[in-house]
Parts: sequence; structure tokens; C-alpha cells
Amino acid sequence: MIETIQWTDQGVVMIDQTRLPAEETYVTCRNYREVADAIRTMIIRGAPAIGVAAAMGVAIGVAQADPADLDGQLAVISKELAGTRPTAVNLFWAIDRMNRVYSEIKHLPFEEIRERLIAEAKLVRVEDIQINMAMGRHGASLVPDGKTVLTHCNAGALATAGYGTALGVIRAAIESGKNIDVYADETRPFLQGARLTVWELQHDGIRATLITDNMAGHFLRAGQIGCVVVGADRIAANGDVANKIGTYSVAVLAKENNIPFYVAAPISTLDLTLSSGEFIPIEERGGAEVTHVFGVRVAPEGTEVRNPAFDVTPNRYVTAIITEKGVARAPFNESLRQLAELKK
Amino acid sequence: MIETIQWTDQGVVMIDQTRLPAEETYVTCRNYREVADAIRTMIIRGAPAIGVAAAMGVAIGVAQADPADLDGQLAVISKELAGTRPTAVNLFWAIDRMNRVYSEIKHLPFEEIRERLIAEAKLVRVEDIQINMAMGRHGASLVPDGKTVLTHCNAGALATAGYGTALGVIRAAIESGKNIDVYADETRPFLQGARLTVWELQHDGIRATLITDNMAGHFLRAGQIGCVVVGADRIAANGDVANKIGTYSVAVLAKENNIPFYVAAPISTLDLTLSSGEFIPIEERGGAEVTHVFGVRVAPEGTEVRNPAFDVTPNRYVTAIITEKGVARAPFNESLRQLAELKK
Repeated sequence: MIETIQWTDQGVVMIDQTRLPAEETYVTCRNYREVADAIRTMIIRGAPAIGVAAAMGVAIGVAQADPADLDGQLAVISKELAGTRPTAVNLFWAIDRMNRVYSEIKHLPFEEIRERLIAEAKLVRVEDIQINMAMGRHGASLVPDGKTVLTHCNAGALATAGYGTALGVIRAAIESGKNIDVYADETRPFLQGARLTVWELQHDGIRATLITDNMAGHFLRAGQIGCVVVGADRIAANGDVANKIGTYSVAVLAKENNIPFYVAAPISTLDLTLSSGEFIPIEERGGAEVTHVFGVRVAPEGTEVRNPAFDVTPNRYVTAIITEKGVARAPFNESLRQLAELKK
Repeated sequence: MIETIQWTDQGVVMIDQTRLPAEETYVTCRNYREVADAIRTMIIRGAPAIGVAAAMGVAIGVAQADPADLDGQLAVISKELAGTRPTAVNLFWAIDRMNRVYSEIKHLPFEEIRERLIAEAKLVRVEDIQINMAMGRHGASLVPDGKTVLTHCNAGALATAGYGTALGVIRAAIESGKNIDVYADETRPFLQGARLTVWELQHDGIRATLITDNMAGHFLRAGQIGCVVVGADRIAANGDVANKIGTYSVAVLAKENNIPFYVAAPISTLDLTLSSGEFIPIEERGGAEVTHVFGVRVAPEGTEVRNPAFDVTPNRYVTAIITEKGVARAPFNESLRQLAELKK
């Protein structure tokens, strides 16, 4: 099993996702600032994994804080972590969760606060794996047997604490006996598909074929793809989905070819405070991600670049949203709220 | 002005498009086999440029042939050149044109045949530039003023003998006084957009912004793009368009967002022998183009790859086809045939 992120006595240990697949190396973040840097530089990425990292970042930050000013320092730590990336709501969800726990136990001795926050961060990680497996159980039946599943970016074990959201659904479909294979969009500019999804599926012996992003439409039209499954970074109350740049295109092309388009995401990815996707902040990253590949320049000096890291897929292109509590379909305003209010 | 391909006393000189933009180097093909290799390895690419290269390949091949067996050797030369790439019909059109000229003059002395074929190959080049400028005149009025034009791949001076098809329309729109800029899809896997289109537009002082292919949908939805203009490698009688992989996706996304999608291509790109695009052969290239970027591995060892170099855009997504003889609109079966039959 791939270990994306773990709490250790030495610090928060993460597999370095900027170096895969060439090198399988691990980074140990020894304080909350190093956790924030790891999120910012995409050593760890993927909405649920970012959530786990943020929870562990709060825990390590408070554990190392001056017991005389925990309130003030928790605020500083939370602000630093919240400022790393704007789109994935799981980041803010995890920080809020840690702050809520803190506010309930802040009257306790420091040593106990420390232990309780570390335990909570570890729980966020363990729950994430359980949530992904539950999502897999709900989603497996939706995947057509004997066909290819197209996925975009990496919504796998590496994007979560383990098992994955979209790739969790694929794993569960295979575990349920279905004969499927995967087409993975390479997902420029960061190449999460080429570098991470293919690597992760090879690791598990799942048949994967790599394509460039601009081939997805061609293959969706060619008839071999049974469904699309992707993850999400934030889902508005109406079911609009922010996810890795290019997701919108895949969704439109799937609909145009009458192929179901599924989003697999935990309830923590819902942002019911936003009525629609137009209010989701979209991170724009540096141009060098586009002009360079692994340090090699692929465009002329002085090239102007746009590099939005995410796009918004309007709900009309989304066939269903697979969560750990069940599957939501249109009208999403109702179905998502109902799922969110369900007891576990 | 960028010189894509030229006939010289030393041979056929081409700018090496595999090395741009890092290096501006020129390759001299000293015999027809070297011309064939240059087409195969994409030192020269782009349907009209391939046509010019093939014409020059026939000329240099016959010029160096044994005068005692010109018929036999022309057949060998033609077969070798025709076997380089299957999709762009301009290749076959140019070889046919040279063979027709040969059959009219084969009774003449060898020296004269040689000179006439060289003159014809040079004429193919000069005509191509004139054709592109005529296309520009017809297309310029279609480009909305004050907006961005999205293009895919490189259908510019580098894809032709000069001026370009899609980029020719953009150049002509700017020359007519329109205030437009260009968004260039990087066009994986060969990165013609990043490497060639941006370089070529910078060269001419045309404002260009580079995006990854999977961002095109996002920006088409965002409202700043006034139209899409692309080239073509082969157009069937019904207006279905084979062009660089990813064109189909851009066309669907343009239509979904009510943005005109224009194809700029010379009449030589029409293949009226094919009733629809489903009969156009689609070249599948080696997997290393996808797994490696400039020699740097971006996917794990043993990655399975699909690499179709082209896709087919059904005519229903095509707003108009801009040719040197005028602009064709649906129903394309009629409009394309009428244009093809027009005297120059």
C-alpha cells in the first residue's frame, strides 16, 4: 500500500509527489511551516490529502507552540496553512475541524491538548481511508463492466490518505469482479496523470493507458470508454464542481458522447456556503509550470502564460456525485444537502 | 520572414522544427530519402509544408535519378515519399501533381525534365504562400475585433511555405487593423503550439499567450475568446476535418459555448474522394512522444500509451472552412465542391 502521509515522532512524513515517478523519496516536515511549504509546492496535493496535511500541520504547530499563548499561535498557524492554496475546501475544513477540537479542550493541560490534537489529526487520516472505501462501495456499481474508465489528474491513493476517491471507485469496481481498464489523461502542466496515476495503478496491477489531455475527446467519441470518474477540490451547493484544470472539457466531451461523468469526493469537499461554482476561487499558478517540463524549457523565452490550476464544471454535465454517504444526482441542491445532513 | 523550406543548389533546406524554439537550425536534405526522413521525423510538419517538401522530394529524386529508367525510379521515389505520413492529403496531392507534370514532359530530354520538375516544385512553394495570403483575405473579416483568437497546434508560416493558414487568417486580421491577440494551445505531445506557434507569433510581434490543451475549454467558457481558427490535414467531402489531435475537443467546446470554429485550409487539403471523415486514416505515432518530453521521462517505465496524431471533427462543429477561393459553410458537400470547381 502506498503511504501518502503519516504522522511520526520525527514529524509529518510525505511521499514527495514532485519527484514521482522517477524517484520514490519521502519528505519529513518537522514543523508547521514545512507542512505549509509542502502543500504550497505540491510535495503533497489532492484535496483530501491536503486536508490531512493541514490537520497534521495544526497538530505539529500547536505541539511546538509556547503553552502560554496557544490561542494566538493557533491563529497564526491556521492562517499560514489556510494561505497555502485557495481552491480545495478540504484544507479549510480540516483547519476548522482542528480549531473546533481545540476550542473544546483548551482549558485542559497543554500536554493533553497536544495529545488530543495529534490524535485528531491521525483520525482525519484514518477516517479519510475509510471514507474512500465507502465511496468505492457506493460507486463500484456505477462503473460499466468490460469497458474503459477515463480519469483526469490523480484522484487516487496519492491524492488522499489512501485508496483514493476516483481511483477508489475504480479499485472497488475491480474488487467487485469487474473487468475494466483505465485511460489516464496526463494532466498538464503538473502531469499528475502521467506521473502519479499511471505509477499508482501499475503499483496495484491495474491496467492503465496514458494519453495526452487533448486525446480524451477522441477516445470518448471512439466508443470504448464506459464512464469518466474524477475527483473534486470543491463542490458548490448546486453541484458545480471545481477540479483540476481540464475537468470541465472532459465533462463536456463526455456529455456530448452520452458517456456518464461521475465525481467522487468526500462530504468534506462540499462547500454548501457557495450557491454555485462561480464563487469558487480558482488558483492561478506560476507560468514556469507550463513553459518548463522537469526543468526543460519547452516554450520560447518571454512567453506569456495563463495557468489556472482548476476549472469549474457546471452541474448539468455531472451525472452523479459519489460520496461516502451515498450517490447524489440532480437536482443536486437537494441531494447534496440531504447527504450532508445524514448521520454517518 | 521565417523560411520554412527552400530549394537550393545544395538540396532542400528546412528549418528543423524538432529543435525550435531552443535552436534555430537548418537541415539540408541532399536526396529524396533525406526529404522522406525529414517528413517522417517531423523536421518539417504541417500539411501544406509537407506538400511542398514532397514536391521538392520528387524533384530532387528525379534530378538525381538514372535517366535510363525515370518511370521506374519516379515510382519508387513517389512510393517512398507517400509512405512517410498517412493523414495529411497534401502529401499525396503534391506527389500526384509532380507525377502529372512528369507524364506530360517525359518525352523531353532529361535535362529539361529535371529543370521542369524543379521549377514545378518551386512553384508549389510560391503558390502556397499566395494561397495562404488569399485565405487570409477571405478569413480576416470573420475574426471578431477586440477579442482573443484561440488556435491549436501550429498552422502558421512553419506549417506552410510561409504566412500560414490559421495564423495567416490571424495575420491578415491584424493587417486589416483588428485589435486581437492569440491564445495558443501547447498541443501535446509534440508541443507545436508552445514551441512553434508562440515562437512564430513572437517573431512577428503578435501578442500570444500559451495555455495547456486542457485549459482551452475553461477559457472558451470564460468569454474572452471571439473565435477559434485551426488548420487541417485532410477535409472529407462532407466537411469533416482531420487535424492535429485535440482539434475535435476544441471544436466541441467552442460549439458548447457558442463560439465560431473556423478551419483554414487550401483546396489541396480537400479529399473529395472520401464521403466522410470516418474514412480518413489516422496516424498513430510512437509512445515515446507521450512518455518523454525533450528526452526527459515523464511517465513510469513500461507505461502503455496511445498516441493518435490526429482526430476527426465532424462537420456539425465547423462554422466555416476558409480556403483560398472563398469561405465554405454548411451544407459542406455542396459548398466545398463548388469551391473546388471554381477557376482560380
